[in-house]
Amino acid sequence: MKQPLWLFMIAVIAAAGLLPLCIARAADKSETSKPNFVVIFCDDLGYGDLGCFGHPTIKTPRLDQMAIEGQRWTQFYSAAPVCTPSRAALLTGRLPLRSGMCSDRRRVLFPNSKGGLPASEVTIAEMLREAGYATACVGKWHLGHHEEFLPTNHGFDSYFGIPYSNDMDRAKSAPKGRTSIFQPQSEYFEVPILRDLEEIERPAHQTTLTLRYTQQATKFISEQPKDKPFFLYLAHSMPHVPLFRSPDFENQSLRGLYGDVIEEIDWSVGQILDSLENAGVAENTLVVFTSDNGPWTSQLDHGGSAGLLHEGKGTTWEGGMREPTLMWWPETIQPGTVADLGSTMDLLATFAALSGAQKPSGRTLDSFDLSGPITGQGPSPREHIFYYRGYQLMAVRHREYKVHYQQQGSYGTEPKKRTKCEPPKLYHLEIDPSERYNIAAENPEVIAEIDALVVTHRSSLKPAPSQLEH
Amino acid sequence: MKQPLWLFMIAVIAAAGLLPLCIARAADKSETSKPNFVVIFCDDLGYGDLGCFGHPTIKTPRLDQMAIEGQRWTQFYSAAPVCTPSRAALLTGRLPLRSGMCSDRRRVLFPNSKGGLPASEVTIAEMLREAGYATACVGKWHLGHHEEFLPTNHGFDSYFGIPYSNDMDRAKSAPKGRTSIFQPQSEYFEVPILRDLEEIERPAHQTTLTLRYTQQATKFISEQPKDKPFFLYLAHSMPHVPLFRSPDFENQSLRGLYGDVIEEIDWSVGQILDSLENAGVAENTLVVFTSDNGPWTSQLDHGGSAGLLHEGKGTTWEGGMREPTLMWWPETIQPGTVADLGSTMDLLATFAALSGAQKPSGRTLDSFDLSGPITGQGPSPREHIFYYRGYQLMAVRHREYKVHYQQQGSYGTEPKKRTKCEPPKLYHLEIDPSERYNIAAENPEVIAEIDALVVTHRSSLKPAPSQLEH
Repeated sequence: MKQPLWLFMIAVIAAAGLLPLCIARAADKSETSKPNFVVIFCDDLGYGDLGCFGHPTIKTPRLDQMAIEGQRWTQFYSAAPVCTPSRAALLTGRLPLRSGMCSDRRRVLFPNSKGGLPASEVTIAEMLREAGYATACVGKWHLGHHEEFLPTNHGFDSYFGIPYSNDMDRAKSAPKGRTSIFQPQSEYFEVPILRDLEEIERPAHQTTLTLRYTQQATKFISEQPKDKPFFLYLAHSMPHVPLFRSPDFENQSLRGLYGDVIEEIDWSVGQILDSLENAGVAENTLVVFTSDNGPWTSQLDHGGSAGLLHEGKGTTWEGGMREPTLMWWPETIQPGTVADLGSTMDLLATFAALSGAQKPSGRTLDSFDLSGPITGQGPSPREHIFYYRGYQLMAVRHREYKVHYQQQGSYGTEPKKRTKCEPPKLYHLEIDPSERYNIAAENPEVIAEIDALVVTHRSSLKPAPSQLEH
Repeated sequence: MKQPLWLFMIAVIAAAGLLPLCIARAADKSETSKPNFVVIFCDDLGYGDLGCFGHPTIKTPRLDQMAIEGQRWTQFYSAAPVCTPSRAALLTGRLPLRSGMCSDRRRVLFPNSKGGLPASEVTIAEMLREAGYATACVGKWHLGHHEEFLPTNHGFDSYFGIPYSNDMDRAKSAPKGRTSIFQPQSEYFEVPILRDLEEIERPAHQTTLTLRYTQQATKFISEQPKDKPFFLYLAHSMPHVPLFRSPDFENQSLRGLYGDVIEEIDWSVGQILDSLENAGVAENTLVVFTSDNGPWTSQLDHGGSAGLLHEGKGTTWEGGMREPTLMWWPETIQPGTVADLGSTMDLLATFAALSGAQKPSGRTLDSFDLSGPITGQGPSPREHIFYYRGYQLMAVRHREYKVHYQQQGSYGTEPKKRTKCEPPKLYHLEIDPSERYNIAAENPEVIAEIDALVVTHRSSLKPAPSQLEH
């Protein structure tokens, strides 16, 4: 059947009209095959410190909105209850004792430490740079402050931030005891700010630390060319004591100084998300917000709250290692609350899966690909959490159950010394997230199953010598 | 200057076009001058038991959505830490000791009690019925089960529900001790269901209690004529032990039986909001969701969680009386988190202000109008909370500060006996919601101010004889 000319003309025009659309789709496809990644990592933030995790007086409208548009992960863990090992594990996708970034004697790296993250370790930044990513580190590093260990020698194109905790390098002139912490001044702490490998400020003016990290981060985002994917690791120094916030946030929060600090971080998250929108890359960027460990409760009201979880920083109860975690990726993420298991160590495998980057080879990884639950395509493959304190395996979670083999309080809480649980204690974390009801006696088969898991786990382990004791 | 005819014509057409709009506005106005009120009142729900208040494994998507569209009140209180006095206070806008609906010997009314809410008390239902409202009570009453005290003799046009707690009237054949509670069957509890004044079922089939309450409530909403405003008081029996849920919710929640129960309540809230939408009255209805007191923590995992708050039901720590509260009123409410002070006793004055109803006269009310914060027009006028246990004033909150004058644990927790705090203990609840840091020594002037408030308060008090000891 012969078609009239006008029909043919319409077909040509329609096809021509579709052409740019097809090109755009293909471009989208190639872009989405390498999404950008932004990790916003807090320091000592408590599980209960955000509005969307139940805090009554800390106002976090931007994070709450991020939770609504994205995912609120309620069973997401850091790999250690203190700073250095937690950060090493996030960046390498490996338990800290595999890299030697932990210790039974010194919890973290100190200004007099000689060690750091070994060159043999492969960070997310190295993995992604190999896959064509631009990489930037802004904020607290704490994986070694000697040149060889710094971010630009571990896969980051650039670095701006402080190399260890903001309460270190106490000035000789600083008031003794806790006064320096509870009535803090920048000059009490001779912590430097580095740009790449160079010290550019000392002592760091801590009041504007969150503000300046935010400016560095949004500048990086706005300067990226469209055709190159990027990875931004923004590790806030706050809310680790001593607490500082910029003048705009002074005395704004009902929760006092600690609340001011969190509300500035909330503002900062808003700035990051807005800058992604403004750069037109929000739909191609996965943003992960979490923390390195639980709240430092011994700092009284300068420390945060673990909400309904037991204990905090330094311990292997839930309050020490379960983190308030949000993920955001407009158009791609399946919005809602996710109770699947996840770990900061999983970011490496997840980013590899989403970007097509090659995971580091020749080593054991403890990293699972979470792209299934993120995109709503399937559940988390992670089924266990190993709770280490230094080289000590304290507890193990398998699915909903957690066995405590050993327990130790932190910063003066009970038990003061590491104490074997004889017999081990068992908790059903989904029914009893506060770890109140030991159900070991009724469930010997669950303990036996987890005991067997520990045997398998230990057989894979080759603990590296501690970098923290140098 | 003479105007051309066409300009005049346009003016006429424009005015005619506006006319129906003006009429619609006027109709809106007359409708909004008498909005509908729905109060959804839970039993023993903990502050930390909803997703939007931070629970990790109880999924409450409808309540979370209600929080996003409406307001999440984070410092909202019941008037007592146990059932009967809390309910009396909500419905009368008065502290329980003014009506005699409390006791130092019996916490609540029991099946063998003779007393109930005195006829001289004026309930919200009576106040609103006087202003032309249809009124319905569905659910647990617990303000007297003898005829004179029942809902239809206290201002409600109709009633469907159980007259006291669902763990009462234990059957002789029921297993002893806690087995009846922890492995519950409906027939262990010979609690009746009443329709108006008539017993229609005994023992109540508790499995479908939440389901049937919901059906009664949505039926009431759908049957209301458009020109008559209504007040629905839906007082769930759950999550008070023994815990029951209908077959659709069995073994659905990660949180176990307690989670199943809350997730059915979440479904029920969705049904209520949907039925308001379907009836076309959502924009003219204020819905308030809250609970009578904190979680019954001594029921182990059959009790809820107070989140970051200390203690639970029966006590005057925050966990006993601060409730997870949501308000919803599409188009009118100012969405967001509200940290203003509020109390269930304030619903009476708030509903009066919003409807033009006359508040009960000739009596002291403890009720403040919260329409300011609800509509975003101004802050809550409430500045204090009096924490009573029976007739005992245990603690007082004034703005951000709370003084404990006496303390007593509940259901076996410390201190077992009522203990005077000598000297009183002081907490800054906005900085320290978990009541961890007693700051009395540093703030004698705050204590003096609250002491003076107590003197004024006591001078207004004429405690009525207890109805619970009859």
